[in-house]
Amino acid sequence: MIAIQDWELAMSQKGLLIVYTGNGKGKTTAALGLAFRALGHGRRVAVIQFIKGKWKCGEIESAKRFGGMLEIHVMGKGFTWVSKDIGEDARAANEAWTFAKKTIQAGRHDLVVLDELTYLIKYKMVSEAEILAALSDRPGQVDVVVTGRGAGRKLIDMADLATEMRKVKHPFEHGVKARKGIEF
Amino acid sequence: MIAIQDWELAMSQKGLLIVYTGNGKGKTTAALGLAFRALGHGRRVAVIQFIKGKWKCGEIESAKRFGGMLEIHVMGKGFTWVSKDIGEDARAANEAWTFAKKTIQAGRHDLVVLDELTYLIKYKMVSEAEILAALSDRPGQVDVVVTGRGAGRKLIDMADLATEMRKVKHPFEHGVKARKGIEF
Repeated sequence: MIAIQDWELAMSQKGLLIVYTGNGKGKTTAALGLAFRALGHGRRVAVIQFIKGKWKCGEIESAKRFGGMLEIHVMGKGFTWVSKDIGEDARAANEAWTFAKKTIQAGRHDLVVLDELTYLIKYKMVSEAEILAALSDRPGQVDVVVTGRGAGRKLIDMADLATEMRKVKHPFEHGVKARKGIEF
Repeated sequence: MIAIQDWELAMSQKGLLIVYTGNGKGKTTAALGLAFRALGHGRRVAVIQFIKGKWKCGEIESAKRFGGMLEIHVMGKGFTWVSKDIGEDARAANEAWTFAKKTIQAGRHDLVVLDELTYLIKYKMVSEAEILAALSDRPGQVDVVVTGRGAGRKLIDMADLATEMRKVKHPFEHGVKARKGIEF
């Protein structure tokens, strides 16, 4: 392996790794915005959702407008990742992660969104080292976006861009229900 | 005017006001994500960009997929809002704001995104009181999203949801150029 000293040169050979973390709202939403922007440039996008599968999301309806350019894979369907049977959740998490890793490695997409991936690391369902290795080994020109609370220091160190979405004010604190077309 | 004690009742009569602020990346991107999600629910969206008009954005290409459901109005075309002729910038800012206010008041859209609106307040190009009054008087069911750095306390107090996008790591710090399909 050649040690590349020039960071810009390294960048030109590899897609960006972007992390949206923090306790505020807007992480998944910003990732969707990146997808929307990328699609406008004719780039192919895969969104892999590790948790929010139980929602029939507006984004899934919107995706249909882009034909095969945008794939949304809902891996967490039926799983909350806080099941009483930790073993079952861990198996599902590993299957989901394996799918994600294959998607990145295949290089068929220009942007791969790994929505709520941080939970798999946080709850030790998938090895952090395994995930970091796969992210690091992503093929050239594949940009990867990772969202979720509590992104670890190693993931942030590896990222090219990291933003913390910090909660300033959250309507759920006031008991307002999730609003169709905004929250899901 | 009737004082509404029940916050949820008040909410059901008025669309949400969402603020994305902070020095990190992802503010405009999250607003685009909200637009994308809303469109999936068949909601009509207007995006009014106060600054980024000089960019030929991926989102403008993507918008074409949604026909008349998504309008993007670029108000800052040719303006940086830091012109040497402050008077000219202020006039342009006020014209842009007047258009935005009319768009909100018309109630023809379910979601109105006011991208980088905070700069107009910050640089005192448009009266903060005037902007806050118009946001407060938005018609029922019109959700409004305001993005931009340095959102003031009064705007955040009025908001239903506010997130600060805090910069953790930014590729521009390393001299990496804006990347097509990610930044614009």
